[in-house]
Amino acid sequence: MSKGKFLITDKVHQKLIDGLLGLDFAVDYKPNISQPEISIAISEYVGIVIATRIKLQIDELKNANSLKWILRAGSGMENVDVELAARKGITCINSPEGNRDAVGEHTLGLLISLFHHIPTSFNEIQNGNWSTEKFRVNELQGNTIAIIGYGNTGSAFAQRLQGMNVKVLAYDKYVPKFTNSFAESVSMNTIFNEADVISFHLPLTNETRSLVDRQFIMQFRKPIYLINTSRGEVVDEVALLEAVESKKIISAALDVITDENSRSQNLLKDELIQKMLSTNRIIITPHIAGKSNMSKEQFADVLLQKLVDKM
Amino acid sequence: MSKGKFLITDKVHQKLIDGLLGLDFAVDYKPNISQPEISIAISEYVGIVIATRIKLQIDELKNANSLKWILRAGSGMENVDVELAARKGITCINSPEGNRDAVGEHTLGLLISLFHHIPTSFNEIQNGNWSTEKFRVNELQGNTIAIIGYGNTGSAFAQRLQGMNVKVLAYDKYVPKFTNSFAESVSMNTIFNEADVISFHLPLTNETRSLVDRQFIMQFRKPIYLINTSRGEVVDEVALLEAVESKKIISAALDVITDENSRSQNLLKDELIQKMLSTNRIIITPHIAGKSNMSKEQFADVLLQKLVDKM
Repeated sequence: MSKGKFLITDKVHQKLIDGLLGLDFAVDYKPNISQPEISIAISEYVGIVIATRIKLQIDELKNANSLKWILRAGSGMENVDVELAARKGITCINSPEGNRDAVGEHTLGLLISLFHHIPTSFNEIQNGNWSTEKFRVNELQGNTIAIIGYGNTGSAFAQRLQGMNVKVLAYDKYVPKFTNSFAESVSMNTIFNEADVISFHLPLTNETRSLVDRQFIMQFRKPIYLINTSRGEVVDEVALLEAVESKKIISAALDVITDENSRSQNLLKDELIQKMLSTNRIIITPHIAGKSNMSKEQFADVLLQKLVDKM
Repeated sequence: MSKGKFLITDKVHQKLIDGLLGLDFAVDYKPNISQPEISIAISEYVGIVIATRIKLQIDELKNANSLKWILRAGSGMENVDVELAARKGITCINSPEGNRDAVGEHTLGLLISLFHHIPTSFNEIQNGNWSTEKFRVNELQGNTIAIIGYGNTGSAFAQRLQGMNVKVLAYDKYVPKFTNSFAESVSMNTIFNEADVISFHLPLTNETRSLVDRQFIMQFRKPIYLINTSRGEVVDEVALLEAVESKKIISAALDVITDENSRSQNLLKDELIQKMLSTNRIIITPHIAGKSNMSKEQFADVLLQKLVDKM
C-alpha cells in the first residue's frame, strides 16, 4: 500500500525516483512545475523534492497539510522556511555530502587559478598576447589559507590542501573546537592576523548575509586573496569591488554572485558585474562548483539513505 | 685574488651576483647580450650563467677555452651541447629544484581547470553567457593520473595530488623502480591501460622530441586528458589537435608549445595555434608554470650551493 505521494520539482537522478517507489511512495515527476503551481499542488503530497529553483515559504507551506518530508538535492536551505516547516512537523533533509568533494576540488582550482594567473593569461593568449610579464606566478606554498565554515565543503577543501605545503586555519562558529588533521581550529582574530587567503563555506542565513562587508575586509592585516563558492549574498559585492580596486584584496574568485536567479539574462548589462570583470583581478565561474557529473546520483544516494534512517 | 670572470646573460636575482663575488669571481652582468656576441666574448670567462634565451652550441663553445662552469637558472639543458661541454672539461649545473614546486602547483591548477571548465566558463561569462549546460564539472576524484618523468616536477606534482582521492601512476625510463608514497612506479603498458590523465615532466632530448605522436596517443585504452608543462616539442601538436578533434583526447592543457622562441610575435596568425584555440578544449598558458615570484631567488640559492659543492 502506498505511503503517499512525492512531488519532484526538478531534474533528478533516476535512482531517486526508483528509490522512492521502492519505499512504497508514489511519485509525480514534474521538473517544469512553476512556483505558483506549488502552493496549490502541495496539499496532495507527503513529500516534495526540490533543488534551487522552487521556494517553500509561508505561501507554499500553509497548504502543506499532509507534508512530512522536504528533500533538497544539494546543500543550501535558504529557499525553505525551515522554522515553519519544523513547527508543522515536516522533516527537512538536505544532501551536502553529495557534492562536497566537487566543491572542494573547484575551490582549490580557483585558488591555484588566482595564484598562477591561469584564466587571465589564457585570455590574453586568445587575444594574441603571449607576453608573460604580467603573469609571474605566485607560489601557493608557504601561504596561510583560512576557511570560514568547516562543514562539508570547508573540510573537503582542507583535505585537498594536504600536499600544498600551506598552513590551513579554519573557523566555524558552530563547531568551535574540532580535531582534524587537515586544518587548525582558530579564532576569527587569528584569521584576520594571519590569513593570506580566505575561502567561504557558509550557508546563507540572516547571520551570514553580507557578512563580508567593508568592515570585515578591513580587519585583515595583510592584503588577501578571496574565494567564495558558497552563496553570493555572503559577500557585499560593492565592498569587494572597492577592496580589489584599493588592492586590499589582491584578487578574488567567485563561483557565486548575488541574486543569481533574479538578475537579467544579459548579466553583462549589469554595471557591477561589468566593473568586477574589468578589474582583471576577479575570476567568475557560473555556479558550477557543485554541479558535477556525479552529483545528481550522489544526491539521490544521500537523500534515500537519510530518508530511510528517519522513517 | 679573483678566480676569473663570470658572464651573466639574463636577469638573475641579486643573490647570485653577490654570491659569485663572495666566491672571489668577477662578474660581468650583461642581461641584454646578444647571441652573436657570445661566441666572441666567451673566451674571456671561466663561467657563464644562462636562462632560456642564450644557446651554447659548437659555435659558442669552440672559443670557450677558459670556461669551467655553465650555470643554468632553470631546468632544461636543451640549449647547451652538454656532450661537447663535458669533452672540454666544462661542468654544467642546472637548478630544477628552484621551481619544481611552482611547476607542480601549476600542473594541478591546469588539471582542475580542465575537469572543472574554469577558464572556459569564465570566457563565456566575459562574453555575456552565463549558461551552465556545457559546463557540468567532472569530479577529479576516482581518476587515475599518470606522470611521465618522475624527477623534480613530476614528483612535486604527485605530492600535490595527495588529498585528491586519485590513483597516481608514474613512469620514468631512467628511474625504473622508485619508492615513493605519492605515486606507484609502473610500466608504460599499465599507463596506456589505466590512465585517465597523462602529464609530461620530461627534459627535451632526442629521445623525447615528438614522443607524443599519433601512435603514442592511440595506445591509450580510454579517452584521456593531456597536460604538458615540460617542453612543447615533446608533443606533436598536429597529432594532438587531431586527437582532440576525434575525442580521443577529451581536453588538453599546455603551458608550453613548439618553437616558442622562434615563432612570430603575433602567434594568433599561426594557423595551428588558431585551430587549437578554436576547439575550446585546449587551454594554453604562456610558459609561466616555473616563472614564479620565488624562482629567481631559489635558482640563485641552488646554483651557488651546487657550485660550492663542486669547486
